[in-house]
Amino acid sequence: MKISSIGGEFALIERIKKKSKLYSEGVIGGIGDDAAVLAYDKQCFLLFTTDMLVENDHFSLEYFTPEQVGMKAIEQNVSDIAAMGGLPKYAVISLALPSNADVEFIDGLYRGINTKSKKYKISIVGGNITHSKEIVVNVAMIGFVEKNNLALRNGAKIGDLIFCSGNVGKSTAGLELIRNKLKGESIKNHLEPECRLELARKLVKIGINSMIDVSDGAASEVRHICDESKVGAMIYADRIPISKNTINDAKKINKDPLDFALYGGEDFELVFTADKNKLNKLKKYDVKVIGEIVNKKHGIKLAKNNKKLNLESGFDHFKRIRV
Amino acid sequence: MKISSIGGEFALIERIKKKSKLYSEGVIGGIGDDAAVLAYDKQCFLLFTTDMLVENDHFSLEYFTPEQVGMKAIEQNVSDIAAMGGLPKYAVISLALPSNADVEFIDGLYRGINTKSKKYKISIVGGNITHSKEIVVNVAMIGFVEKNNLALRNGAKIGDLIFCSGNVGKSTAGLELIRNKLKGESIKNHLEPECRLELARKLVKIGINSMIDVSDGAASEVRHICDESKVGAMIYADRIPISKNTINDAKKINKDPLDFALYGGEDFELVFTADKNKLNKLKKYDVKVIGEIVNKKHGIKLAKNNKKLNLESGFDHFKRIRV
Repeated sequence: MKISSIGGEFALIERIKKKSKLYSEGVIGGIGDDAAVLAYDKQCFLLFTTDMLVENDHFSLEYFTPEQVGMKAIEQNVSDIAAMGGLPKYAVISLALPSNADVEFIDGLYRGINTKSKKYKISIVGGNITHSKEIVVNVAMIGFVEKNNLALRNGAKIGDLIFCSGNVGKSTAGLELIRNKLKGESIKNHLEPECRLELARKLVKIGINSMIDVSDGAASEVRHICDESKVGAMIYADRIPISKNTINDAKKINKDPLDFALYGGEDFELVFTADKNKLNKLKKYDVKVIGEIVNKKHGIKLAKNNKKLNLESGFDHFKRIRV
Repeated sequence: MKISSIGGEFALIERIKKKSKLYSEGVIGGIGDDAAVLAYDKQCFLLFTTDMLVENDHFSLEYFTPEQVGMKAIEQNVSDIAAMGGLPKYAVISLALPSNADVEFIDGLYRGINTKSKKYKISIVGGNITHSKEIVVNVAMIGFVEKNNLALRNGAKIGDLIFCSGNVGKSTAGLELIRNKLKGESIKNHLEPECRLELARKLVKIGINSMIDVSDGAASEVRHICDESKVGAMIYADRIPISKNTINDAKKINKDPLDFALYGGEDFELVFTADKNKLNKLKKYDVKVIGEIVNKKHGIKLAKNNKKLNLESGFDHFKRIRV
């Protein structure tokens, strides 16, 4: 039975989640959020996450420098820690390299890793190197979060406003330009994405109800929050924040930038929900209201051109190959 | 410049170690041991490690069941935690799968992961799934060790006895049988290696000076201890513990079982050093004295057939491909 026949990546994660039992104490939150939440001390939880970059799936050295691969590998893990409301601290790195790999690739990769480690105050404390046909860079990261700052996917409440930070669709716009051998501002968003650690820390201190990072498109992230929180959502297409650059670059290839925003990946922005009474405090920051949490029975809907559509899922590695 | 031209895998790790700076507090031990040692509480350190299995490098589905792949992925990480004297507790898993991957593979893999998680009381608390040409299974693991039970590679002292647990060379003997399409007891040692967590815990409570797990051959592990402890070693070839099965199976393919023991990989036994006054207590367990720690100026030597040879290094992923 093929993975696609059970519903792809997200169905597979659900299947694994059901099969995985806990055999140790201290698990506050396991599979199903951006990072695991583990007992630590009176004040803090420990956060634990991992993410992998695979050559020809997440990047190609035809347009990524080794340094950019290293930066992205750290950035996507920090984004997971940020989405929990925490701060990253330690990482270990597994590398699989083809036998003809250059030392210059390693040097560049680690330059990128070090640049981001310095930025986010992370120590690289271990790893391993092995052999493969394609380059694989896996990062596992430990972070910490004060208990009252913890943000989960499952905290959304009916009546919450749904917010999105910055703007979305930019990374996919960049990827599409690269695929079509065109130039544009979005390319940098794909090659050098930046997560929103600093913003996330401000949001959790104001007090939000749920949060997730945008790694598979805003639609997918809203769906994850709804699934985990057992609620529905109404999203307004005209409120999804999309930058002028993304709109311009999508035009060049006759694509709808809204599709990039909803169903593209790797923007590393934040989707979160908060009570309406937090709006005044939250709107001081780089965030936009994109919808509202509703009762589960109303489903997850997208209001577009005066129609209510069912919101599709996000990027699925087993339905579409990235590069 | 190719990796092989700077001296292969171990030279590369040394190069990465030099380039990696620490940007956060609490790092007791970083790159260069079986696991990182991080500040935790008054009694314990936190241990953090990661290890990757790559299809056609570490395993082939022609002779590994998916369940065995899952078991080995956990076992090799638990072995790293064991070698530090600690106990494993949490793990996250990254999977990269070809687009034609079967759900049955995933089910089998997780059956293996769960079997070992139950055995070692580990909770699988997260992970991610992505796409690749070959199957990649990366495990990152957190464990804990009481401060006085911590065992490092760098604690060996001149005059220490060097010990090896169980018997070594068995996994490589099994792999060679498989390659030669022969049968033999060693095959199970390759497909279902077992690490020495329980034994390691007993050893650290007796009081040893240094320890490492046997993942790249006993010779390589002695070398790592010597490098980190800035000492030399004298190893006696006739004392290296090799089982009758390994000897029999090596005969079938006209290979020297000592080569498997010294330069093969993935036995997940323990090499450790301890003061001579611990010998009486230690010899109650499944361990053998294989040599002695000497002054660095004497180098790392192998006494064999009344000759003193320089001990070569162990398995290097960039010099030889496994399967």
